[in-house]
Amino acid sequence: MTGETPQLSVVQRLRKSPFYDATVRWGVRTFTVYNHMLMPTCFESTEADYWKLVTGTTLWDVAAERQVEIIGKDAFRLVRLLTPCNLSEIAVGQCKYAPVVDHNGGMINDPLITRLDDDRFWISLADSDVLLWAKGVALGMRLDVEIFEPDVSPLALQGPQSRAVASSLFGDWIGTLGFFRVRETELDGIPLVVARSGWSKQGGFEFYLLDGRRGEELWERVMHAGKPFGIAPAAPSTIERVESGLLSYGSDMTLDNNPLEIGLQKLCDLDQEFDFIGKSALREIRRAGVRQKLVGLTMGEQRLPGNQHWWPVLDTGDAVLGKVTSAVYSPRLQRYIGFAIIETGHAVPGKTVRVVSPHGEFPGLVGPASFETPPAHARRGSEKIS
Amino acid sequence: MTGETPQLSVVQRLRKSPFYDATVRWGVRTFTVYNHMLMPTCFESTEADYWKLVTGTTLWDVAAERQVEIIGKDAFRLVRLLTPCNLSEIAVGQCKYAPVVDHNGGMINDPLITRLDDDRFWISLADSDVLLWAKGVALGMRLDVEIFEPDVSPLALQGPQSRAVASSLFGDWIGTLGFFRVRETELDGIPLVVARSGWSKQGGFEFYLLDGRRGEELWERVMHAGKPFGIAPAAPSTIERVESGLLSYGSDMTLDNNPLEIGLQKLCDLDQEFDFIGKSALREIRRAGVRQKLVGLTMGEQRLPGNQHWWPVLDTGDAVLGKVTSAVYSPRLQRYIGFAIIETGHAVPGKTVRVVSPHGEFPGLVGPASFETPPAHARRGSEKIS
Repeated sequence: MTGETPQLSVVQRLRKSPFYDATVRWGVRTFTVYNHMLMPTCFESTEADYWKLVTGTTLWDVAAERQVEIIGKDAFRLVRLLTPCNLSEIAVGQCKYAPVVDHNGGMINDPLITRLDDDRFWISLADSDVLLWAKGVALGMRLDVEIFEPDVSPLALQGPQSRAVASSLFGDWIGTLGFFRVRETELDGIPLVVARSGWSKQGGFEFYLLDGRRGEELWERVMHAGKPFGIAPAAPSTIERVESGLLSYGSDMTLDNNPLEIGLQKLCDLDQEFDFIGKSALREIRRAGVRQKLVGLTMGEQRLPGNQHWWPVLDTGDAVLGKVTSAVYSPRLQRYIGFAIIETGHAVPGKTVRVVSPHGEFPGLVGPASFETPPAHARRGSEKIS
Repeated sequence: MTGETPQLSVVQRLRKSPFYDATVRWGVRTFTVYNHMLMPTCFESTEADYWKLVTGTTLWDVAAERQVEIIGKDAFRLVRLLTPCNLSEIAVGQCKYAPVVDHNGGMINDPLITRLDDDRFWISLADSDVLLWAKGVALGMRLDVEIFEPDVSPLALQGPQSRAVASSLFGDWIGTLGFFRVRETELDGIPLVVARSGWSKQGGFEFYLLDGRRGEELWERVMHAGKPFGIAPAAPSTIERVESGLLSYGSDMTLDNNPLEIGLQKLCDLDQEFDFIGKSALREIRRAGVRQKLVGLTMGEQRLPGNQHWWPVLDTGDAVLGKVTSAVYSPRLQRYIGFAIIETGHAVPGKTVRVVSPHGEFPGLVGPASFETPPAHARRGSEKIS
């Protein structure tokens, strides 16, 4: 089914976001399933949505980035147990991108963790049931916490024009909100937490809706305010996030990967005093050295669709070095680019490897796992991706 | 988007089953996502696939029913902790349908648990990451176990002709395999565990493939053997499972439901000595009495598609009593039937409630949560569901 788009059976089991009806009305074409919830992936086309994101401002239903809320006397202790990130100094109102690992150091999720109050946290999830992991750990350790999925649904405003839209909605103070900082507020009485965050490097905000009954109202309110700025409905862009070096849990990492090999070592403080889950495993991995590394690959100029599977990466002989985890055509770079996880000895910038795809074999030039893109106005492609 | 089938974006994050390429070749039309994996839901049409199941034999890719394998000294103890089902007597080679609940008694999953050896178990999952729950509990309690997702992918052969197909593949012994019993075997050297089980009441087997590289080979081998018996590719049938009273996790129950209110009380031994997770919560719920109950509803003769959302259930005033969780048109009963979870006082056979659907309002007659169907040959509908 390479290149084709299969159909999705919709039953109640696949949860609907508070913005679902709005996205249908605004012309959503494709969905994915994320945390047991439908999440839009495309409105006009993958490439058209991308250009709107990098040149303007776009609104995304990312309610499927569900929250795990942890409150209670041991909440801070539990949250620190869950991540190798050093959270000792995390302030109320601050978020951190913090890997969650198991006792082997395997990646369970790569969420944002937000401190809402001294003893109250949200874990804003990629696609895995961290709710069950956190509940299991807390039960086994008899921690004094409550853990649940609150009625909280993020709506993302992303793109260089997002600040103008957000200021017209909330006032000038939002322009001064620090990166990865949150503030509780409301819009026409709709209760929200506003964060300066989002799964792109184009700038923007996430509005965490605190009342699922008011999703359509919030969506329409933001769309209306964005009209003078050319706002468009869109969705997390695989093209932009690969260009920008943002990883996707399940594609670029799984439970079989540790954070040190996928470029998240800078987020891990293995020398902190606190005894987080996976500490001794990760220290041992650091001591022995990682066996594989996530790198960027530049794979030629072909305009191909994204990968639907992991693709083997070989050396000049036929030895398997690893796999391509994400691959997209970058319209700004006019190159086919992606991420691969390959043996450490080959994970060296400037090295060339062989990529075996269903579209044929092509060379891959190893480089850093984020790509230098020219300004968005420099060139805009017109061909359609095959 | 009521009645329409949206499209699904396929990326690596949505895992592919070992039978994926085979199902594409055999004409799969729609998928769902289940345990982060694509799972076929329809080949010819919902109703055509149903008739093939209830009159003949069908092959289903249910690899997305992933296994959690638990081995080690404390494996039996952990498995018993996870369920209110009394597993004290579970034999090697036996499976049990066993609810998994959290410490509040909330449903985490409704898997099959199989004992493969004294200290080795599989939990065959509905759609939630029980892997993370079990790992969290074991870590917190410092249990001596290993917990992982093995390379094991179920392929289901279901329908009244399944025994004939299975006998031609494996020999006569398979006809004597007891219900919910498993046996390790092979087929042309393909390693398998064979179970007499499956998510229908039409009879059949599940072949747990033990080597993901051999999925296509197994699929084609079974299809070939089934040819004289009119085998067809199909998928778990929402129509048949509702007729037969089989629940679907995420639709008919969530973490907000306890097993006592959804008809699984017969599986829960709250008086056993063993101190499983959720025991005191479930005993308290039993003492106080459940506030709501899952019932069957017969909702008239209209040929409507299945529900995509929960639908409100009202009394003759406008008080909300609960919700319809699953609804289908049953071609054998020529009735629109389903399940609802409603207030205990109204969960009385013979009572009539009001169902508010996007297709209009209709009365619902309360009855047991499984339906008496006439033999499949009695009548076969020809109209298409709108």
